[in-house]
Amino acid sequence: MKEGMNRREFVKASAAAGLAVATAPNIVKGVDDRKAKLGFIGVGGRGTGHLSLLLRRKDIEVPAVCDIKKDAVDRASELVVKSGRPKPTGYTNGEEDFRNLVVRDDLDGVVISTPWEWHVAMAVAAMKAGKYAGVEVPAATTIDGCWDLVNTSEQTGVPCMLLENVCYRRDVMAVLNILRQGLFGEIVHCECGYRHDLREVKFNPGVQFGPGANGEAVWRTAHSIKRNGELYPTHGIGPIAEYLDINRGNRFVSLTSTASKARGLRDYIIRKAGENHPNAKIEFALGDVVTTVIKCANGEIVTVNHDTNTPHPYSLGFRVQGTRGIWNDVNGSIYIEGRSPKEHTWEPFDSYLKEFDHPLWKKYAEEAAGAGHGGMDFFVAHAFVESIKRKVQPPIDVYDAAAWSVITPLSEQSIAQGSTPMPFPDFTDGRWMYNKPSFAFGEEY
Amino acid sequence: MKEGMNRREFVKASAAAGLAVATAPNIVKGVDDRKAKLGFIGVGGRGTGHLSLLLRRKDIEVPAVCDIKKDAVDRASELVVKSGRPKPTGYTNGEEDFRNLVVRDDLDGVVISTPWEWHVAMAVAAMKAGKYAGVEVPAATTIDGCWDLVNTSEQTGVPCMLLENVCYRRDVMAVLNILRQGLFGEIVHCECGYRHDLREVKFNPGVQFGPGANGEAVWRTAHSIKRNGELYPTHGIGPIAEYLDINRGNRFVSLTSTASKARGLRDYIIRKAGENHPNAKIEFALGDVVTTVIKCANGEIVTVNHDTNTPHPYSLGFRVQGTRGIWNDVNGSIYIEGRSPKEHTWEPFDSYLKEFDHPLWKKYAEEAAGAGHGGMDFFVAHAFVESIKRKVQPPIDVYDAAAWSVITPLSEQSIAQGSTPMPFPDFTDGRWMYNKPSFAFGEEY
Repeated sequence: MKEGMNRREFVKASAAAGLAVATAPNIVKGVDDRKAKLGFIGVGGRGTGHLSLLLRRKDIEVPAVCDIKKDAVDRASELVVKSGRPKPTGYTNGEEDFRNLVVRDDLDGVVISTPWEWHVAMAVAAMKAGKYAGVEVPAATTIDGCWDLVNTSEQTGVPCMLLENVCYRRDVMAVLNILRQGLFGEIVHCECGYRHDLREVKFNPGVQFGPGANGEAVWRTAHSIKRNGELYPTHGIGPIAEYLDINRGNRFVSLTSTASKARGLRDYIIRKAGENHPNAKIEFALGDVVTTVIKCANGEIVTVNHDTNTPHPYSLGFRVQGTRGIWNDVNGSIYIEGRSPKEHTWEPFDSYLKEFDHPLWKKYAEEAAGAGHGGMDFFVAHAFVESIKRKVQPPIDVYDAAAWSVITPLSEQSIAQGSTPMPFPDFTDGRWMYNKPSFAFGEEY
Repeated sequence: MKEGMNRREFVKASAAAGLAVATAPNIVKGVDDRKAKLGFIGVGGRGTGHLSLLLRRKDIEVPAVCDIKKDAVDRASELVVKSGRPKPTGYTNGEEDFRNLVVRDDLDGVVISTPWEWHVAMAVAAMKAGKYAGVEVPAATTIDGCWDLVNTSEQTGVPCMLLENVCYRRDVMAVLNILRQGLFGEIVHCECGYRHDLREVKFNPGVQFGPGANGEAVWRTAHSIKRNGELYPTHGIGPIAEYLDINRGNRFVSLTSTASKARGLRDYIIRKAGENHPNAKIEFALGDVVTTVIKCANGEIVTVNHDTNTPHPYSLGFRVQGTRGIWNDVNGSIYIEGRSPKEHTWEPFDSYLKEFDHPLWKKYAEEAAGAGHGGMDFFVAHAFVESIKRKVQPPIDVYDAAAWSVITPLSEQSIAQGSTPMPFPDFTDGRWMYNKPSFAFGEEY
């Protein structure tokens, strides 16, 4: 991207210059006529969720679907047909067949919901073929992968959106609204994380994982065996990055990461299947709790906890703290100095959720109703589709995808080196200093 | 301390060898007759709190009281006289007059409640004079100070107790009970901190601090101006150290510390007194939130937050997490797999507080009623007095005092070096591997 260009100019310029985006077959005639033609790579649980949700819209077409499992493609095709659309072409011919999908000339964008380690290859292939890449979280699992996404997007002029739905959680967006109205004062500290007991996801059925197991146990468990780090940062860090204007006036500068011992998964296996089960001998690399502390250019610090191997209720553990007030999602509370009725005493967040409901939620609550994960899935898909229709950068762009996802490999390095601080790459090459915040300002998407 | 000796043997051996403790004037005749003769150094807010509480006991005498302020000593003397005891000798002749108190031959122990930077000098002087040192938190502010305490205690054979009251908080002790009964499984991760809005303590009255100000604003504020680190770790880390058997089979190995920018205090001054007030120009060193992550020898990690400059309700932010269950004080909840009625759902902690009430609380609840900080002040003073009467090591000993307090200077070094990991000194010189847990096992103290 040329210096001084903002995202919107960049995409328009790319289009004007006859780059990939401009060759996409969709011609903008008017808001009502615009459609996004989407291909789906990966239609397991998550991909099917995206597909079902998007099929409720009138402004999308689904010419192609890809999955290594034929029955997944068949099920997806049936959903498309049931929605009154033509039967999509299916791509099921092995792990590399997605490359045949992305080069079709009847697609504007591709939704990628595959195992983590495939995200970069698929998003890069999509961008190189001129298709908007909508990639599930995390976007990459290595530093090189993050750079590949950024470099490819810059070289092709094609956007890549990270499909981080939690940025659109209703309370998360209300807090964004509260923050932008200044009620927290100047933010100094945030906390977030992924505290989700995944034992029944990592082992399914019983204590099985790998080929032949169900759902994410097929591939996700391997990451717990081989890797020790903050493996899943974006649900927590995405919203925090929006609060802190990361890549838009601020950036992540460095992190330290520390891992506890790994005990939970083995304990689970032994209780479920006994000490003599072969899986009871596995040495898991992933610490049960991994705590990462990030320092930002503007002086804020952010704590991120990854916590998926032991029994506890689900929480993303948000805490946003400034000179005038604080939101504490762990106890569902807020405290604003001078506004909260009782000094040094929490107020329930509920009334703030109503008063500061984000304009996007006010406008689209009805459309979001029934969408996955409390409605937030609607918004992230909506943003992807609307960005494609307008041929603009999506609100969560390739620099966000890289800066949020790179936490994982950096935390692995920090842990491997005894919690040594690791610097973040600056994927924007200095443009973070000049970029302006852009997430969820309008009422459109 | 000689290798292979446990604490109790150590004190008994010291006494038998005619060391300082043995020359103390109190002779054990029987439980009912034993008394602890206590001197008080520092009778401001906190020291007076200890004094008032201890005067309710029949087993203590107070022959001497010291403070640089004569009116403080007068007030303390009056309290002693009102309790039916002889008027104590007062020491008010400047900052070094405490040295004349500690050498009296009618004292067994000294309670030290002075500004942090005096704790080491006073505790060392007390131990050298053969008096049990009971020192308020933190015990020291430097690494050398921690070593001075340990070396002096070992060389003199005289114990030093850190008066960390939160170890005796009723819910904290119930959790200790739950943990020892195995309900959490194997502990992997803990969180704690000191999240206390101290702005009205650091500035009092108005935005004043330093000489002429009130209470702790006289001296404590200077630490926020000059130091950037985890300044007050022991209220949080004390209970966690007991949970994790620190110095007794486990130890703190290393930490990283990261500080946010410092904004809260200046914002407070400007709002209270305007931009033109001279204090509005102060550059505070202390980050508003300082997050420290400690790695333990047995593989647990502990997050500690110091957070005193912005508006928020008080919390020590406890979280104790194992392979089978978790206590989350931030939302007043607990979850024990297989016991909690609803899967993945918090239970209120209240019923556990009743069921797992610690034997010490069951026994002494009546005596503790009305004591400071919800009754826990009774227990810490009780433990100090009972240890003196029995001539044994106190349950929170000089190694605990050092290991918990050294977090502060280590965190300052880590922050100054960009969150570089800092190793903990092993104050026990390897004995942590053989020492057995000893805190709050009996029903006596």
